[in-house]
Amino acid sequence: MYVRKSRLLTPGPTPLLPSAIRAMAAADLHHRTADFREVYSGVIRDLHYFMGTENGIALFASSGSGAMEAAVSNLFSPGDKAVACVAGKFGERWLQIGEAFGLELVVLTRPYGESVGPEELERALRDHPDAQGVFVQATETSTGISHDVEAMGGIVSSTDAVLVVDAITGLGSSEIRIDDWGLDVVIGGSQKALMVPPGLAYCAVSEKAMGRAERARNPRFYFNLKKHIDAGPRGDSPWTPASSLILGMAEVLRYVREIGRERLIRNAQLLARATRDAARAVGLELFARDAIPAGAVTAILAPDGIDSGEIVRGFRDRFDAIIANGQGSMKGRIFRLAHLGYFDFHDLFAAVAELELILRLMDRDVELGSGVRAVQAVYLEACAEDNGGAR
Amino acid sequence: MYVRKSRLLTPGPTPLLPSAIRAMAAADLHHRTADFREVYSGVIRDLHYFMGTENGIALFASSGSGAMEAAVSNLFSPGDKAVACVAGKFGERWLQIGEAFGLELVVLTRPYGESVGPEELERALRDHPDAQGVFVQATETSTGISHDVEAMGGIVSSTDAVLVVDAITGLGSSEIRIDDWGLDVVIGGSQKALMVPPGLAYCAVSEKAMGRAERARNPRFYFNLKKHIDAGPRGDSPWTPASSLILGMAEVLRYVREIGRERLIRNAQLLARATRDAARAVGLELFARDAIPAGAVTAILAPDGIDSGEIVRGFRDRFDAIIANGQGSMKGRIFRLAHLGYFDFHDLFAAVAELELILRLMDRDVELGSGVRAVQAVYLEACAEDNGGAR
Repeated sequence: MYVRKSRLLTPGPTPLLPSAIRAMAAADLHHRTADFREVYSGVIRDLHYFMGTENGIALFASSGSGAMEAAVSNLFSPGDKAVACVAGKFGERWLQIGEAFGLELVVLTRPYGESVGPEELERALRDHPDAQGVFVQATETSTGISHDVEAMGGIVSSTDAVLVVDAITGLGSSEIRIDDWGLDVVIGGSQKALMVPPGLAYCAVSEKAMGRAERARNPRFYFNLKKHIDAGPRGDSPWTPASSLILGMAEVLRYVREIGRERLIRNAQLLARATRDAARAVGLELFARDAIPAGAVTAILAPDGIDSGEIVRGFRDRFDAIIANGQGSMKGRIFRLAHLGYFDFHDLFAAVAELELILRLMDRDVELGSGVRAVQAVYLEACAEDNGGAR
Repeated sequence: MYVRKSRLLTPGPTPLLPSAIRAMAAADLHHRTADFREVYSGVIRDLHYFMGTENGIALFASSGSGAMEAAVSNLFSPGDKAVACVAGKFGERWLQIGEAFGLELVVLTRPYGESVGPEELERALRDHPDAQGVFVQATETSTGISHDVEAMGGIVSSTDAVLVVDAITGLGSSEIRIDDWGLDVVIGGSQKALMVPPGLAYCAVSEKAMGRAERARNPRFYFNLKKHIDAGPRGDSPWTPASSLILGMAEVLRYVREIGRERLIRNAQLLARATRDAARAVGLELFARDAIPAGAVTAILAPDGIDSGEIVRGFRDRFDAIIANGQGSMKGRIFRLAHLGYFDFHDLFAAVAELELILRLMDRDVELGSGVRAVQAVYLEACAEDNGGAR
């Protein structure tokens, strides 16, 4: 019946920045040349700006899970005790990695949709003064909630333990003050707020954590933190870098410097707020309960009697738009709309108009335009906050 | 304040097809090779499908104005009399080309926003039985109206005159049955419904017109119709072809075959109808009066006391979207939203939500969401027409 353009509305991979796509196409550059070293060292420098930290940064040709493993293998020895905060599918990944590397984990679990509170962590560290580390997600992408990593940083930094934060979707979508808050390892990925395809992971590592790396006895080779942190500023990588992705990331970091990392974060927060208001306006319930909702992604409960997969399918079949279903046990119960990286109000106006239609075509009682109006109201409030300016 | 993605919502250039962009990047192909000849002859073959004609097709490395000149220089001699239907800026172009090539033009003018009726043309041909040709726009892009070229074809084909139709924005956005309706020359461009950048023009030429080309005495070299029509099916062009654009167009024509040219046309017609409904819903007036509105582009009057340039600026500054102002004397009075080529409902949901906000921020009394609801209603009607199917 009509033309449909493919669109990615998922929390990773996210929509690509056009200038990054062009840069990746120009990847006929050898990585052991002065030209490439300049690009690579610029990426490391600009990652410091994007992450807002003075800590050393390691950049890997890997997915985010690789950097999660790096934190475990570089900072811990077999038998070390550590606390894992688990509130979703990505929290559960700490258990798998911890098991692989012989850690003894104290697990603080909250049901999907909730978060682990700082007071729970404080209690656990009191009960286990020998804990060497704490693992947590800044934002749990599978459920759309945030952890209070600021408070957790305050708690952990007064102990000998190191705080390892998976901020793969949290970076660039929420404020994370790594140095002020005492976050020892903070992990990011390329296919999230950084608007390039999957294949790069990076992490900022504190001196406290590096001191532990010297003593830790778990084996590591590819993900050796020290090697990467030392080589990066010289424009080198210990192993062959994913050069086309590096060229793309250089463009994205240039763009982030241009618009300002604060604006990127505010954008995600605004779109997330607008999405929550729109969901309520069309009569849907948010999944995040008693938890700070994430700026990266909003999880919405499918109405009673409807599998969320049908809503995902509606977006795909009717509008060629890919949105995320729930993961693990949440599959079929929630669907997720993303805001991190290269998303704008235009995307959201349309996505919400489409959601309204999909619900209506499932015979739900939805006032057409009501969700869009909620997004428009957030736009207008944001304009007023900015003194009526266009930006 | 927020991330804004650049978007082109103009009636040419139009948004590019992604696979065409990729193909253009692969333009390291010499044009006098068997590989390129295969691509080129395929483009000519697929243009026959897209245009729906058995007539010979000439393909030029030029803008659409080049193909307009080709029709004048190849088919007419100095002093020839012809009728020009003029209802906007592109109609006026016939006068300039006619003057350059020494034609004696009988001019049928209608004010911007109206169209020249077939009965006016019939009268003119009766009053001027020595007229050798008729020039008209299928759709006048500057004002968003269509001419009834079906009726005009019926009138002209019973005379010795040839009917020359500028369908640069009409092709792919409205039904144009070239052979059935007796349209002698029908002109198109690459940057319109064909979703590639500007730089290619093409025209289908009837046998009646080619017969006239043999006798016409106006000079022509670059735009020689016969040379181009004869060489194309062999995969050749008389002069160096714009090879990257040809590669892009080959991809677009493959896509058009896949979705069907009827669907492309229906898409534009649906989006145009939805845009008209949305404009009325937000209290705006359409510019097309007593004329068939175009499927390619919708012209909307700015509200009293507002320069349409402010609305165009609102789209640009607030949402980084480029829409078209009025042209010529209509600049400041109308703005235009495009539907031809690679546009979809998603684009329109968002554009209308943005128009509502822009008007509201100019203190106009607009119910937020009301225009979007009008677009949603057209979507639902179209689904119902298609028996509730997703396409």
